[in-house]
Amino acid sequence: MPVPPEVLLELARPLIHHRTPEFSAVLDSARELLKPLFGTCQEVVLFASSGTGAMEAAVVNLLDTSHHAVFVNGGKFGERWGKLIAAHGAIAHEVRVEWGRSVLPEQIDDALRANPAVRAVFVQASETSTGALHPVAEIGEVTRRRGTLLIVDGITSVGVFEQKMDEWGVDALVTGSQKALMLPPGLSMIALSNQALARAHQNNARGFYFDLLRELKAQRDEHTTAYTPASALVFGLNKALEVIHAETLPRVFARQLLMAKATRAAASALGLHILPDNPAPGVTAITTPDSIDSSKVVRYMRDELGVSIQGGQNHLKGRLIRIGHMGHLSVFDMLTAVSALEVALAKFGHRFESGAGVATVQTYIKRGFAGGA
Amino acid sequence: MPVPPEVLLELARPLIHHRTPEFSAVLDSARELLKPLFGTCQEVVLFASSGTGAMEAAVVNLLDTSHHAVFVNGGKFGERWGKLIAAHGAIAHEVRVEWGRSVLPEQIDDALRANPAVRAVFVQASETSTGALHPVAEIGEVTRRRGTLLIVDGITSVGVFEQKMDEWGVDALVTGSQKALMLPPGLSMIALSNQALARAHQNNARGFYFDLLRELKAQRDEHTTAYTPASALVFGLNKALEVIHAETLPRVFARQLLMAKATRAAASALGLHILPDNPAPGVTAITTPDSIDSSKVVRYMRDELGVSIQGGQNHLKGRLIRIGHMGHLSVFDMLTAVSALEVALAKFGHRFESGAGVATVQTYIKRGFAGGA
Repeated sequence: MPVPPEVLLELARPLIHHRTPEFSAVLDSARELLKPLFGTCQEVVLFASSGTGAMEAAVVNLLDTSHHAVFVNGGKFGERWGKLIAAHGAIAHEVRVEWGRSVLPEQIDDALRANPAVRAVFVQASETSTGALHPVAEIGEVTRRRGTLLIVDGITSVGVFEQKMDEWGVDALVTGSQKALMLPPGLSMIALSNQALARAHQNNARGFYFDLLRELKAQRDEHTTAYTPASALVFGLNKALEVIHAETLPRVFARQLLMAKATRAAASALGLHILPDNPAPGVTAITTPDSIDSSKVVRYMRDELGVSIQGGQNHLKGRLIRIGHMGHLSVFDMLTAVSALEVALAKFGHRFESGAGVATVQTYIKRGFAGGA
Repeated sequence: MPVPPEVLLELARPLIHHRTPEFSAVLDSARELLKPLFGTCQEVVLFASSGTGAMEAAVVNLLDTSHHAVFVNGGKFGERWGKLIAAHGAIAHEVRVEWGRSVLPEQIDDALRANPAVRAVFVQASETSTGALHPVAEIGEVTRRRGTLLIVDGITSVGVFEQKMDEWGVDALVTGSQKALMLPPGLSMIALSNQALARAHQNNARGFYFDLLRELKAQRDEHTTAYTPASALVFGLNKALEVIHAETLPRVFARQLLMAKATRAAASALGLHILPDNPAPGVTAITTPDSIDSSKVVRYMRDELGVSIQGGQNHLKGRLIRIGHMGHLSVFDMLTAVSALEVALAKFGHRFESGAGVATVQTYIKRGFAGGA
């Protein structure tokens, strides 16, 4: 994902030491500016790690090793929740969803009824590996009613579309720096509800590096981090959040949604199938025709056309292309991506009306800038 | 610590995606260029975390929760080993050393004789909080003879002075990006001996984010990282290592040692006391006279003179100033630091021969550039 030039320049500034009032001011500012993206009044805590680190923080702080938890496995990142829970020694109950489908709130309800010992439900807001959206608000109604915690991976949703953590009853929301936050990877963020904080306080083995209560205390009360922070990225984060708030969140969300709609419609116009029924606004996952190995499409686009898209993972390897539209991108970038995709598809023998994808994106460009996407 | 301009510019380059051949080539290169700094033929593994994360990786991969371990507590970072071991649920046996002193190899031997169940010894090569050097080579003789692992925090030693991990019998050596490696913080590195690797393979709970065997497999066999890497910092690391190897390691070590000697001698010339008996080349820890609160000296130098030094930690707060001389600094920077220190000491009422510190640094500058430090 591209990093805006003003953020790159921020990363190139001579480094200010992290035990200084200047760093504290920027840390405070960035944590405050994150709250509207999370839809929370709670404190947002940063870690020097990628998003998986903050996912592990959620698991080790909110589950004891003997606890039962439900996780939704509808893709590679859902599967990761299961691995994290098991690695921590807790008992993971899988709600399996065909990769590409969205979980139904009733499936969560059934799993909680079948396993009354379950203390927490782990899910993705947007499953990056399949482009599917999970219904977090509706799941929140179930978990609230059943009295369990709800932990959400928001790595490709925070900053992409509106999150209402507090309103939806989300007890932990996790994200990373490298998607909608327009930074290089290496920073993760997590916010906890009061209920989750209470649970963490009862937990006697919260690990060390990812001990959320220790980090919360340092960041909230001492305006610094417990351990050395990824300080250059924190300065960059504050700058990126200034850029986001200057554009305003509604416009940021609308820009990303316009890209998603244009990309989906273009794929359909090229005779391709969108994998998820309920697609997320951050990434469009498109299945390639059986005769075409999607890995070759990705490689050709990258090496010959200079256009970066992603392929499928695990059993979807070779069958999926994923076009990201998060962060510092516009619908004109989708024009480029779809144009390159047309070239690649033609090369690998897919039959379609040449130019149909580009023409479709163009209609969305016109609609978007006429004010009605 | 300052970051060299060529490294800052590297951080400001448009980001290359981390699942590409370009990133793999840079990851491979950086990991290879680190080996001489570690003094090892083993693989060096990177984590997107600060140094404490790699310290936790050493603990969770090499100890089971039931295992006994010895740690040397001679400062804040030694103390941290103890906290990490305890947080993991293992049994920590402290070898306490007065803060500022170096541990004696006999103390380790005694602790191992008294606790035959101990499987690993954890120590700092250089205890950053006190500026003391611990005798890693001699401790390695003891641990080899006693058949225990030796785990070393090299955060202020790797790249500062010669490390002979393989020769000294060090089983795990940890470092971070922000000291001698001249980068912003947010990357950590660790190398394991074959014996440590075998131990990790026996370990059935290695955590998730810091699972060393999983990262080793990804980085060695797949030329990528298991989870999203701090990619901008990895590009910066490769550039910083090119800068280091262009200067050559012997000259890098000599430059840092010259700064250390000049700083120590200048402190003595100002009538101040160096805290450690056996000082480390990376940081000089100086005790301030009883009448002077060192925190005020640090704050005055930072806010009024624009010169960044550090104070003491824990019970040494207010009693210690620490001058770092790692990474992208030269003995002329020590001229600045000592000059500013003279101004601050005079302001807070310390009596000394004005200019004596600066004159002392000047003699080291002359010696250094005449070729014989």
